[in-house]
Amino acid sequence: MPGTATPRPAGLNSTADLPKPPGLHWNVRAKQPVAYSVSMVRGLLDPENPTLAHACGGGWGRPFRSLVVIDAAVDALYRDRFEAYFAHWRIEATWQVVQGDEEAKYLEQAVLVTEAMSRMGILRRAEKVVAVGGGVVLDIVGFAASMYRRGVPYVRVPTTLIGQIDAGIGVKTGINYGHHKNRLGSYFAPELALIDPEFLRTIDPRHVANGMAEIVKMALVKDAALFDLLEATAGTITADTLAGCGSAVSEVLSRAISGMLDELEPNLWEQVLERSVDYGHTFSPSLELRADPPLLHGEAVAVDMAICLALAHLRGHLSQEDTGRALKLMQDLGLPVAHPTFTRELLEEALGDAVKHRDGLQRVPLTRGIGSVVFANDLTPEELGRALDFVTGWKATRNGELAGAAI
Amino acid sequence: MPGTATPRPAGLNSTADLPKPPGLHWNVRAKQPVAYSVSMVRGLLDPENPTLAHACGGGWGRPFRSLVVIDAAVDALYRDRFEAYFAHWRIEATWQVVQGDEEAKYLEQAVLVTEAMSRMGILRRAEKVVAVGGGVVLDIVGFAASMYRRGVPYVRVPTTLIGQIDAGIGVKTGINYGHHKNRLGSYFAPELALIDPEFLRTIDPRHVANGMAEIVKMALVKDAALFDLLEATAGTITADTLAGCGSAVSEVLSRAISGMLDELEPNLWEQVLERSVDYGHTFSPSLELRADPPLLHGEAVAVDMAICLALAHLRGHLSQEDTGRALKLMQDLGLPVAHPTFTRELLEEALGDAVKHRDGLQRVPLTRGIGSVVFANDLTPEELGRALDFVTGWKATRNGELAGAAI
Repeated sequence: MPGTATPRPAGLNSTADLPKPPGLHWNVRAKQPVAYSVSMVRGLLDPENPTLAHACGGGWGRPFRSLVVIDAAVDALYRDRFEAYFAHWRIEATWQVVQGDEEAKYLEQAVLVTEAMSRMGILRRAEKVVAVGGGVVLDIVGFAASMYRRGVPYVRVPTTLIGQIDAGIGVKTGINYGHHKNRLGSYFAPELALIDPEFLRTIDPRHVANGMAEIVKMALVKDAALFDLLEATAGTITADTLAGCGSAVSEVLSRAISGMLDELEPNLWEQVLERSVDYGHTFSPSLELRADPPLLHGEAVAVDMAICLALAHLRGHLSQEDTGRALKLMQDLGLPVAHPTFTRELLEEALGDAVKHRDGLQRVPLTRGIGSVVFANDLTPEELGRALDFVTGWKATRNGELAGAAI
Repeated sequence: MPGTATPRPAGLNSTADLPKPPGLHWNVRAKQPVAYSVSMVRGLLDPENPTLAHACGGGWGRPFRSLVVIDAAVDALYRDRFEAYFAHWRIEATWQVVQGDEEAKYLEQAVLVTEAMSRMGILRRAEKVVAVGGGVVLDIVGFAASMYRRGVPYVRVPTTLIGQIDAGIGVKTGINYGHHKNRLGSYFAPELALIDPEFLRTIDPRHVANGMAEIVKMALVKDAALFDLLEATAGTITADTLAGCGSAVSEVLSRAISGMLDELEPNLWEQVLERSVDYGHTFSPSLELRADPPLLHGEAVAVDMAICLALAHLRGHLSQEDTGRALKLMQDLGLPVAHPTFTRELLEEALGDAVKHRDGLQRVPLTRGIGSVVFANDLTPEELGRALDFVTGWKATRNGELAGAAI
C-alpha cells in the first residue's frame, strides 16, 4: 500500500500536481476483529462460581484488581453479595456508584467514570472495568471505557430485563445530549456480557414490562413462534418467574437474545441503515425525552410500535386480526399503546430527526405479517395522523370491551 | 454463532447452571473493515482542482453541504481562499472555528464541534465534516466525529508539518484530560487525508522544527536513508522550501509518510503495544503538559529522543558517533535536546504512567543502530539519571565546540 502511486485523478492538471511520484497517494486498509460472548449463567454471585472472577481476569489464586462501576439501585440491593464474592476470589474491587436513571445519562457521568479509571491507575489491557446495572449504566460505562486511553476492556453485567436482552448484549454505547437520545457514543464491544436472570427477582413490574417491550419487538420483526409463546405466557411473566427461569421463560429469554444477536452480528457498525431492530425506535426517541412524567425506554418503544402496527395495517401489510393481537399483547404485558405527547406534530418532528440519523431516508421498519419486516421510505404526515387515529379507536373499542366484560 | 451451546465451563456445578440449553452461550464475531487514503496534492485550493470538493462528497454540479471545522490560525490566513474554492464547486460550507493550541485540546471543544453538527443537522453518512488545521484541531474534530451519532465521516486537511506527516494521517483522535495527554479519545479513521505542502509556507520556524522532530523519529526507528537525507538537507529546510516541495523535500515528506503508514497499517488499533512510532513518546507526554513556557509536541519528543539516544548508547546499542550525529541533527534542525523540567524524578514518573498505558510493561523503544529499534522493559531510575547526565555532558561539550568555532 504505502508508496504505490495511483493513476493521476482526472481533472488534476499537471501544474497542480506534485513534482513526481512516489508518495502521491497511499491507501490504508485494515480489518478490526471484534469478538465477544454473551453467557446466561445462573448463580453469578455464588462463591462456587468462578465465571465472574475469570471475566475480571482474576480468580486464579493471586489478588487481581478490577474497577466495578455499579448502578446505585443495584448497589443498594447487591453490594454485600458482590463484596463477599470478590473477597472469595481475591478480586480487589474499586467501586464507583453511578445513577441509573435516564436523567443521569449525560456526558459528565461518563467523564466521572473515566476519572475513576484514572484514580485507580487501571492498566490499559489486563485489568477490566465491570459494569453492573441497567441499560443506562451499561451505556455510560461502555462509552467511558471506549474513550479512556482510546479503549480499555470491560465486562457487562446487565441486571434489568431490558439490559439482559437488549441494551446489555450489543456493542453500542452512548449518552444523551441536549434533547437527543444517545447523541454521543461509540461502537465498543465488551469482552463478555454475563446474564444472570436471578437479578430480575428485584425489578418492579413496570421494569418487567419495559424489557418485555423489546422482546415483543424481536417477536414482531423476526420470530412468529416467539410471538405465540408470548401470547401464551404473558399472564405468567413476573419478576419471580423471570428469575426462576423455568423452561418457558428460558425459551423467551434465549429466543430474544438469539434473535437480537443474529440481527446485530452481520451489521455491528450499522453499515446497513435498514435495521429491523430499529422497529419501534423511529418515533420513540423524541417521545422518551419529552414525556412528562418520564416514560421508560420500552414504554416509549411500545407506543411507537403501536403506531407502526397501525401503519402496517393501513398499508395492507398486517391483518386486522394480527394488528389486534399485537396491540392486545402489549396491553396484557402492561405496556402503553398510546400517549398524550404523541401528536401528529411530534411524529413528524421525530421522523425528521430519524431521517437525519438514517442518512436522508425514512427507512422505517414495518411488520409484513408477524415475524418479518419491510422498510418504508414514503410515510406522509396524513398517514401518520391516520395511524394515530387507528390506535386511538382501537384502544377505545378495547376499553369498552373490557368494561363490558367487567360488568 | 447464536444459539450454539458450548461445553459447560469447568467449575460450574450443575445446580448453578441454567435448566437447559439452547441459549447458554453465544459468540459474536465480526471484522470491521477500515479503509482510508492519504493523498499529497498540490493546489488543493486551486479552483481548477476538484479533489477537495469531491472529498466533501460534492463538486458534481448540484449544491452540497459540508461542515468545515477550521483552526483559528488557518482561518485567519486562508478563509477567503477556502470560501472562493467552495463557492466555485457549490459546496455550502457551515463554518466552525476552533482554537488550535494545546491548551484548547479539551473535551468542551470536541463537544462544541458536535453541537455544530447538530445545529447543521448533518446527515449521518452522506455529508462530511472537513477538519482543517494542525494536529490539535484534527484530534478534536476526529474525536467529535467519532462520537456524534457514534460516528460520522470526516476528511482531514492538515496544515502544519507535524499534521501532514504524523497527527493528520493516522486514525487516533483525542483530547487532554486533567494532566494527561490524549487521555480520552478514539480510533476513528478519516475517509481521506489531503496533504498540500503549500500550506506550510505560512508556518513559523518553530513549527517547522516541531514537524521535523517526528520526521527524525521515523528516520531513527526505520529509515537510515532518510536520516542521511536529513543530515544532508537540514540546513535548507524552511517553510518556503517545504512549500516548494522540490525533489529533496518531496522525498523527505513522502518517506516520512510512507514510513508512518507502514507502521500504522498492521497495528491500527494498537493491539501490539510495542510500537516503534512511540519512540520519543515515553517521557515526552509528561514534559509536554508540564513545561512552562509550554513546549510544542515535537520539541518535547526531541528532548525525549535525546534521552533515548543516550540510553541506547549506554546500553551499547548505538555508537558514540551515531549518538552524536543524531543529537547534532536535532540541534541543527532547531530542536532542543534537554529541558530543565526533565529531571530524573519526572522521567521516573512519566515512565510509571507509560507503563500503565503499555499495560504493565515499559516497552520503551530504543534505537539499535540508526534505522531500527529494540524494546526495553528493564530501565532503572539510575540508568535514567545516567542518560540525563550523558545528554547534559554532550550538550556542554558541543556548546563549547560551537563557541570555540565562533571565536
